[in-house]
Amino acid sequence: MDGDDQLAHERSKAEFNVDDMKIVWAGSRHAFEVSNRMSRLVASDPVFEKSNRAVMTRKELFKNTLRKSVHAWKLINELPLSEEESVMFRYFMDQPGFMDLHWRMFVPAIKGQGTEEQKQKWLSLANKMKIIGCYAQTELGHGSNVQGLETTATFDPQTDQFILHSPTQTSSKWWPGGLGKVSTHAVVYARLITNGKDHGVHGFIVQLRNLDDHSPLPGITIGDIGVKFGNGAYNSMDNGFLMFDKFRIPRDQMLMRLSKVTREGKYVPSDVPRQLMYGTMVSVRQTIVSNASVAMARAVCIATRYSAVRRQFGSQNGGIETQVIDYKTQQNRLFPLLASAYAFRFVGEWLKWLYTDVTQRLEASDFATLPEAHACTAGLKSMTTSATSDGIEECRKLCGGHGYLWCSGLPELFAVYVPACTYEGDNVVLQLQVARFLMKSVSQLSSGKAPAGTTAYMGRAKHLLQCRSSVRKAEDWLNPAMVLEAFEARALRMAVSCANNLSKFENQEQGFSELLADLVEAAIAHCQLIVVSKFIVKLEGEIKGRGVKNQLKNLCYIYALHLIHKHLGDFLSTNTITSEQASVASQQLRSLYSQVRPNAVALVDAFDYTDHYLGSVLGRYDGNVYPKLFEEALKDPLNDSVVPDGYREYIRPLIKQKLRSARL
Amino acid sequence: MDGDDQLAHERSKAEFNVDDMKIVWAGSRHAFEVSNRMSRLVASDPVFEKSNRAVMTRKELFKNTLRKSVHAWKLINELPLSEEESVMFRYFMDQPGFMDLHWRMFVPAIKGQGTEEQKQKWLSLANKMKIIGCYAQTELGHGSNVQGLETTATFDPQTDQFILHSPTQTSSKWWPGGLGKVSTHAVVYARLITNGKDHGVHGFIVQLRNLDDHSPLPGITIGDIGVKFGNGAYNSMDNGFLMFDKFRIPRDQMLMRLSKVTREGKYVPSDVPRQLMYGTMVSVRQTIVSNASVAMARAVCIATRYSAVRRQFGSQNGGIETQVIDYKTQQNRLFPLLASAYAFRFVGEWLKWLYTDVTQRLEASDFATLPEAHACTAGLKSMTTSATSDGIEECRKLCGGHGYLWCSGLPELFAVYVPACTYEGDNVVLQLQVARFLMKSVSQLSSGKAPAGTTAYMGRAKHLLQCRSSVRKAEDWLNPAMVLEAFEARALRMAVSCANNLSKFENQEQGFSELLADLVEAAIAHCQLIVVSKFIVKLEGEIKGRGVKNQLKNLCYIYALHLIHKHLGDFLSTNTITSEQASVASQQLRSLYSQVRPNAVALVDAFDYTDHYLGSVLGRYDGNVYPKLFEEALKDPLNDSVVPDGYREYIRPLIKQKLRSARL
Repeated sequence: MDGDDQLAHERSKAEFNVDDMKIVWAGSRHAFEVSNRMSRLVASDPVFEKSNRAVMTRKELFKNTLRKSVHAWKLINELPLSEEESVMFRYFMDQPGFMDLHWRMFVPAIKGQGTEEQKQKWLSLANKMKIIGCYAQTELGHGSNVQGLETTATFDPQTDQFILHSPTQTSSKWWPGGLGKVSTHAVVYARLITNGKDHGVHGFIVQLRNLDDHSPLPGITIGDIGVKFGNGAYNSMDNGFLMFDKFRIPRDQMLMRLSKVTREGKYVPSDVPRQLMYGTMVSVRQTIVSNASVAMARAVCIATRYSAVRRQFGSQNGGIETQVIDYKTQQNRLFPLLASAYAFRFVGEWLKWLYTDVTQRLEASDFATLPEAHACTAGLKSMTTSATSDGIEECRKLCGGHGYLWCSGLPELFAVYVPACTYEGDNVVLQLQVARFLMKSVSQLSSGKAPAGTTAYMGRAKHLLQCRSSVRKAEDWLNPAMVLEAFEARALRMAVSCANNLSKFENQEQGFSELLADLVEAAIAHCQLIVVSKFIVKLEGEIKGRGVKNQLKNLCYIYALHLIHKHLGDFLSTNTITSEQASVASQQLRSLYSQVRPNAVALVDAFDYTDHYLGSVLGRYDGNVYPKLFEEALKDPLNDSVVPDGYREYIRPLIKQKLRSARL
Repeated sequence: MDGDDQLAHERSKAEFNVDDMKIVWAGSRHAFEVSNRMSRLVASDPVFEKSNRAVMTRKELFKNTLRKSVHAWKLINELPLSEEESVMFRYFMDQPGFMDLHWRMFVPAIKGQGTEEQKQKWLSLANKMKIIGCYAQTELGHGSNVQGLETTATFDPQTDQFILHSPTQTSSKWWPGGLGKVSTHAVVYARLITNGKDHGVHGFIVQLRNLDDHSPLPGITIGDIGVKFGNGAYNSMDNGFLMFDKFRIPRDQMLMRLSKVTREGKYVPSDVPRQLMYGTMVSVRQTIVSNASVAMARAVCIATRYSAVRRQFGSQNGGIETQVIDYKTQQNRLFPLLASAYAFRFVGEWLKWLYTDVTQRLEASDFATLPEAHACTAGLKSMTTSATSDGIEECRKLCGGHGYLWCSGLPELFAVYVPACTYEGDNVVLQLQVARFLMKSVSQLSSGKAPAGTTAYMGRAKHLLQCRSSVRKAEDWLNPAMVLEAFEARALRMAVSCANNLSKFENQEQGFSELLADLVEAAIAHCQLIVVSKFIVKLEGEIKGRGVKNQLKNLCYIYALHLIHKHLGDFLSTNTITSEQASVASQQLRSLYSQVRPNAVALVDAFDYTDHYLGSVLGRYDGNVYPKLFEEALKDPLNDSVVPDGYREYIRPLIKQKLRSARL
């Protein structure tokens, strides 16, 4: 039986309509069609070939990225593609590069923080890519703590200019993507100083390179920060460093929507509310959550298909071995990740709605929901990216030894994904922000102010603090109300317990610092509740297609019940459930695994990933894994010659016992 | 304050004698001296430079490995170094290569499975490296299941030869290190067939390449399997594939110590007990556990030093920021890993003793302790390598963004380490072997046969199944008897619970398959008990040096109590401890973190790693991190020129809006 037939048989077992599931996964028929069309457009163009990435030198990889990026831009303009299509097209190109920063950070920063005049001037250049921009915030010695940045922008009233300066080595900008070799401009964050007074960190538009020969402007030192994790991966990006030696820019290049400096050097905050900035943060983090589901789905797709192809043990008398996907240990590790991919997808969809809602409110100067929206996007960004990083590596291990080959796609996916745990807010720092918000919410419970949004459950504190789960048998764990109550009670009890412990400290900040680890766990419990509850809400809505809803139900409860098992200590120590209830939850989980098993391959087919995007020999749609592994191996430069370079100098003198003549 | 002074201050705070701790870590003064001398010998020789690995092409890296390996061999012979010294010397070279397989697999296979005659012939060649060997077992389609191998070795009585053949593509040997480009010989595992009968898998010595020009012999197809995870890392190794097309070898190249084939083709098992083979497995896995502690220590050393150098937040009015190692969230993640490094070190030391003990018994034909020794090395191999892989990645995250740079040393350490979870027994498969052994042990409890060794605690089943922890206050968790009882009760209760659940199934094998996930958890609980108990035993012995024992006590209880927190669900659901006892355990843990904090840097200094071996800018002994990050960045080939290659072809046409003339 060849690989092709093997997966066809798997597909024939599916108890639902895959095409309908594709629509649910994509979010709408329209979204599916765009994504389907763009992924195939990329896959069909030989310029976007990816399989050679691992054997390229850093310079070749970088140049190849320039080629792909510029080719993509040409296609986008010539076809032309709509903005929605362009975004998807670049996504499926799947090669980090300067365009990402230009479009996702540089342009939005000007849009969000520039005055109308500034937008008119700079966006007209940026939108045509007459200039290429990046986002220069992080410094060598300062990551998470933006307020600790050292770069200064001192206003010089004599010349009507700002003088940008890097006073120390640690103040060097360090990490910005696209900065090292490509960008002509940057939005640079620096401490604004006028009349000797430090007004904190502000953004400035700064030209970095000469537009005629690309050489850095005098007063600017700039370069690439070197090799990063993995083969290929983020090494296509020119993350850079940047130092200023008293570099001057005109006053009107400070981004002045929120505050400005007058000709006289007076610092004037505008009446535009600062909270608007948080809206942007919500938007960026919502995208990260949505990307987490894509990355998790990609890893799960590879591991699921290969687990159906691969056979180990269990043969009787030399007969055919068992598909590894049939082992409970495999299901127990793989299916919760499959369920997580769907869970993150739906919570990401909901976050998109939340962002729209927040934006509308902000425009109407309603800031009431902002803290809650901010906390929940921060928490979900943290929770989903951590789970996805771990999940990718788990999928790699689930592929056995071959998962370690670059051509499995998983090593590079891991290497390219893990920075998501650090950028746009370190995941632990973010959970602490959520914890602060939770502690505030708990403290306000007695005030009579009804908690809203994702904290609404706290309004039922009285019930949730004393209720006992009414689960009796395994099937009860398929009851949405019972599952939800367990997650709500656990989250609330952990938060209240932290609040109680905090209150024992005279100094709140000292208490907070002492209890950091517990606070992070309470925040995670809250975030997991959000994901579970949004999945349940999704199931309550209309879902079309034969068998589709049933599959999603199974995945929803696998997601919830595997969390109960994983965090059993939380549930038991808060007396939310009993050991017996936990034990029937495990029983139900095993039964759900059996129900998912025949649908597993179809459930990953529903992601609609092309083989090009997956970039994995193990995850090929046709399951034709082994011959292709050989093909890939033969492409390695080490196989260019049968006798390797180095034989004459080293191997031969060694075995001929003539080491004295070896060139060492 | 520069980095140098910063860590000096940290070192001055230590409450123990670091030099004495170095001896404890190394195992003896002698072991310390050898390791100290060898690591510095490697570090002082420019041939062993490592920092350029990430920018080498695969071919350059491979050739560089040949150079290093052959240079090392020359030094070993010329100095000369003893065998003990050579092993350490190659270890500190820190570059995977063909020598590893030659010495650790090829030579031991012949020693263990060859007849006296075979040993005389082949070892005299191998010991001088007149031939280079590897170990060809794993096949493309067959990893964990050795009995499923497909390669055949059919005896041909006419010519007195074996005919080696690869009947399918999946039967190709795949993965053996050193096979792809270097080895002249291999021990090949194949199904032995005589007179049409399949006698299962046996080992054969096979010449692969012509000794004069290194070309593969006719009938042999051979090559490298391609790029693996990460930059540098295992890509220095020529993991290979190998196919036989009716390739003939003389009959006397079957390894005939355990069974032989006569001139007539008769298969004759010898009277050498098969169990001897398990002795080798115990030896190999014991080494892996010992290496786990080294890898974990290396990652922890980098993360600890950099956490003391790095500062974030907490500054008042622009003052100096807080060292990140002072944050409880950082301690809560880092210190359990520091404790694990020490815990794995001591359990590894004990395993070394166990191996000696087992070997002596085997030689006296006493096989009684073998199953227990086999189960506990399998379990500890699995448990320590999984924890170490996760721990390395956690340490990388603990370094923030800069941990993502290759020069932090952590990406490569992760990439080079993770295969330890898969090779020499997949970690999940191994825990299932432990689980089978535990189920057997439980079933024998009623037989009156006293369980021995690491399962001796099961002899107190009656007590352990009903006892209640007598912990009242935080300090009770520093009582070795109370800690040990908690781990014993939890492990036993989980095993007994699995056994009870198994007994509900009519078909034992079906029950085993259904309960796989629970069985793995019970096995892990058993293994954690072993590690905790061996750490406690270590503390009961004499430990010299000012303050040394006190530090180790803190680490021992951090190790134990963090496990209680991490697996709280186990402890609570088995009613081993109460929520209140868990809560005081957390309290005690926080207090232990505070006690470790001033000693943290000195505790990682005790590993005595050179900067060469660490290979990390962030983990430098002198803490002089930031200037060195710049130095490393400037070495990247992308920084060879200010204007990058590709500017003319891609960037310039883009910003000059002349894409039509671009070379796409």
